[in-house]
Amino acid sequence: MVTPTPLPGQAAPLPKTYGMLLFRGFELLDVYGPLEALSVLAKRTQLDLYMLAETLDPVTTEPLMASMNKFNSSFFPSVNPTHTLANAPEIDVLIVPGGVGTRSPFLNDTIDWIAETYPKVQYLLTVCTGSALVAKSGVLDGRRATTNKASWSSMTLYGPNVEWVPRARWVVDGNIWTSSGISAGIDATMAFIEHLYGADNATEIANLMEYDRHTDPDWDPFSDIWDVPSA
Amino acid sequence: MVTPTPLPGQAAPLPKTYGMLLFRGFELLDVYGPLEALSVLAKRTQLDLYMLAETLDPVTTEPLMASMNKFNSSFFPSVNPTHTLANAPEIDVLIVPGGVGTRSPFLNDTIDWIAETYPKVQYLLTVCTGSALVAKSGVLDGRRATTNKASWSSMTLYGPNVEWVPRARWVVDGNIWTSSGISAGIDATMAFIEHLYGADNATEIANLMEYDRHTDPDWDPFSDIWDVPSA
Repeated sequence: MVTPTPLPGQAAPLPKTYGMLLFRGFELLDVYGPLEALSVLAKRTQLDLYMLAETLDPVTTEPLMASMNKFNSSFFPSVNPTHTLANAPEIDVLIVPGGVGTRSPFLNDTIDWIAETYPKVQYLLTVCTGSALVAKSGVLDGRRATTNKASWSSMTLYGPNVEWVPRARWVVDGNIWTSSGISAGIDATMAFIEHLYGADNATEIANLMEYDRHTDPDWDPFSDIWDVPSA
Repeated sequence: MVTPTPLPGQAAPLPKTYGMLLFRGFELLDVYGPLEALSVLAKRTQLDLYMLAETLDPVTTEPLMASMNKFNSSFFPSVNPTHTLANAPEIDVLIVPGGVGTRSPFLNDTIDWIAETYPKVQYLLTVCTGSALVAKSGVLDGRRATTNKASWSSMTLYGPNVEWVPRARWVVDGNIWTSSGISAGIDATMAFIEHLYGADNATEIANLMEYDRHTDPDWDPFSDIWDVPSA
């Protein structure tokens, strides 16, 4: 049973509805790491999940370009959207994953939708290069944010007006939580759960997942490993 | 570019085809943790993935029984099988995830299929309570194996002839790799990749995932946290 512990002064009710944005070439764990933690939370309090994409067709992890699949692998699960962006229900928390698909030149409708939707949500979470997609929408302008460390130089170009934080597991600026690459999304989501539902719930969820979480947002050995400038 | 480093004496070629077994009520990260690591590997060598279930209908994480969804959440992504069990291609590596669905009394065809398929694969990997499903098939009889620590007592009952290892992140017995709960599947898969493709590839894949992996199969604080007997 969840014992919500809203922070002092928190007026809004706890979020109930989560929307996961999907696009071709998303990164698997960017989507399913956060959803794993939240699905355990959903056994302890009422939550709804919407899987959102431009159309209702299954969304594949297959890159748009064959050059991004050099060895001709066929290793591409697909996921089923529940709603199109045009018909998305109201959502409290929008999650934007990353992946090679964030480099696609065909995501303008999705990027416009992010800009239109952000003012209506309680929280925006991004994982990995998802922050580059959000940066393209202008929503991160003037904000502190982080992104994938192996793709740092190319991704931060998408947000020339963003205050990119080069050494961070995740960054919180107002109601926007951005995380570093791939698995960092799990730690950011666990911290988000702790922020809203308290440390006891976050710890028990991590223990159920047998997950050894990083609780320090500044923990980031990957900045050095990937030679992120100014890290 | 992958530089395969088969172990001395390893006669069989490196595995190419991976089959992920799916059933209603699977646990998200049990499936997508291993698939994340393997999908990064698939960018470095040619791999094929088959998603296998009794039928081609989308497979949901929704539990079979409403009593397993006490707060009436609607937080259940679905995944699309590529083949039925009856029409599955030959696979080199079979992965069996866990989840509440492993308790289902309606999985006899799946369990029979595991028993028939195991002799034909190079490796069998299980995540979390997936080892209980494999135990029901008899394949683990006389083998060392581990499983989810929070559900230890109920799950190990499914394998009275299995030598259950109470303190382990993962256990290797011959060509069978069983891992502990949920996120342990990522560490087991990384160790499996290291075993077949070498430490350099495993390390680079972990760095790309920005994943702080556990490399010691005996690391297991969750045995104590969940009071696993004899741990």
